[in-house]
Amino acid sequence: MNDLHQRIAASFNAQGLMATLGARLVRVQDGEVQIDMPFAPGLSQQHGYAHAGAITSIVDSACGYAALTRGPVGCEVVTAEFKTNFLRPAIGQRFVAVGRVVNAGRQLAVVTGEVLAHAAEGGDAAAPKVVALMQATMVYVNPR
Amino acid sequence: MNDLHQRIAASFNAQGLMATLGARLVRVQDGEVQIDMPFAPGLSQQHGYAHAGAITSIVDSACGYAALTRGPVGCEVVTAEFKTNFLRPAIGQRFVAVGRVVNAGRQLAVVTGEVLAHAAEGGDAAAPKVVALMQATMVYVNPR
Amino acid sequence: MNDLHQRIAASFNAQGLMATLGARLVRVQDGEVQIDMPFAPGLSQQHGYAHAGAITSIVDSACGYAALTRGPVGCEVVTAEFKTNFLRPAIGQRFVAVGRVVNAGRQLAVVTGEVLAHAAEGGDAAAPKVVALMQATMVYVNPR
Amino acid sequence: MNDLHQRIAASFNAQGLMATLGARLVRVQDGEVQIDMPFAPGLSQQHGYAHAGAITSIVDSACGYAALTRGPVGCEVVTAEFKTNFLRPAIGQRFVAVGRVVNAGRQLAVVTGEVLAHAAEGGDAAAPKVVALMQATMVYVNPR
Repeated sequence: MNDLHQRIAASFNAQGLMATLGARLVRVQDGEVQIDMPFAPGLSQQHGYAHAGAITSIVDSACGYAALTRGPVGCEVVTAEFKTNFLRPAIGQRFVAVGRVVNAGRQLAVVTGEVLAHAAEGGDAAAPKVVALMQATMVYVNPR
Repeated sequence: MNDLHQRIAASFNAQGLMATLGARLVRVQDGEVQIDMPFAPGLSQQHGYAHAGAITSIVDSACGYAALTRGPVGCEVVTAEFKTNFLRPAIGQRFVAVGRVVNAGRQLAVVTGEVLAHAAEGGDAAAPKVVALMQATMVYVNPR
Repeated sequence: MNDLHQRIAASFNAQGLMATLGARLVRVQDGEVQIDMPFAPGLSQQHGYAHAGAITSIVDSACGYAALTRGPVGCEVVTAEFKTNFLRPAIGQRFVAVGRVVNAGRQLAVVTGEVLAHAAEGGDAAAPKVVALMQATMVYVNPR
Repeated sequence: MNDLHQRIAASFNAQGLMATLGARLVRVQDGEVQIDMPFAPGLSQQHGYAHAGAITSIVDSACGYAALTRGPVGCEVVTAEFKTNFLRPAIGQRFVAVGRVVNAGRQLAVVTGEVLAHAAEGGDAAAPKVVALMQATMVYVNPR
């Protein structure tokens, strides 16, 4: 775990919402970050599937941290905006959000993300399915 | 509380995520729905403000239910997609999400939403500030 | 016509696409800009209505110039991103795009826009209809 | 050129805006459509680059026709909404828009698109650069 990974892990652990949702940071690499979230009833919408807001929360964090891996030294990241399409009901035992940098400038980064639903917690007989697709703009800011 | 309000309240109460976030349905009227969420540490991002995902979750629910007030009789609503701009850090004691229908067709509704941050829990000396702006597409579906 | 209006008019006149589309700058005020475009067959999609791209072009320009009315002195504006919902077929004799600033910061502005379709070129018996809704992020840049 | 390709070519040729912009349909395959547009001064924004609206017009058409390749037999496609990020100034001699289907349902398709700028009209010494990224929702409709 290098410096950047440590910084991102510390930041992730400071996000109260990620703990509330039961999400974990599972991968940090150059330009790509992955976050896992097991399904739980406290994440549901009215039909018992994962709520679009929970799905969006983890892919927003994945996209933000992906942008951070390409940002100027010492900077932080805030979300300027994101857009998410929901492709099918978010049914699964586990959701994996992946954020990937498309382009990182000096001020802004454009990032895409997706959330995959896994039918089973561990090994997965069926292929995971994409339930959400994000396209986002992140802003690099200097810490105060 | 009329039939539609009751149906929406029942649906809202079935959303596990709304309870997890501490959100409450506070107003349902034709074409407009309002949801409240007091701030809590378990909703935070890394700097202690409300996480974009928590903010988005309540305004998505408000937009969905606003669409439902204009949908065909007996239908339900799912989010096709939304886009959220974050205007400033979500600092406040209480967040109020308002969803409003712009246009409702037979299959789709276009809805806008905003989230206002209130500095104090009860009466508010300072005017509330808009922290997020949403533009969304909702789909009317038939219950199975 | 004040300085800012003159600067925006000069910039608008330098946009080759606006001339190609037959668009005219019709109003510039603090935080709001309006652009008109009469319908012409060269703007159509396959069913003969105005193409989503033509509609988007005028509301993007309106949103950008609206942001410029609130920008730092001497700055210019570029579009970081926009999102447009199309509410109904763009049928009309004349389209009016209005861009309005929601929030202008030091680096970024959040702007909303709409396009109204007018049934007749001049006086309008029927009320104009909203055919498109935009939510956009503009970036303030320094001229080189 | 199979039936679907012929239908799409006929529809493309009926889009007045594509002729106005000088755009050409260059590839139709299952789930992917490509449209070319040589740069011309009549497509410019105020600094002489291609206008975001012109760039968006061709990638919207590419995304719509990509969706059509996966739609129900005999259906047509309209754009419900799109979101476009602009990654860098659209400087080039030629722009190539590619639309690709991510998911096609019975009513809606989710499509992504990108626009590549080529420095030279023909053979290209430098690698083309992505200038815009789109994420869109298309609706399948029955022809009247």
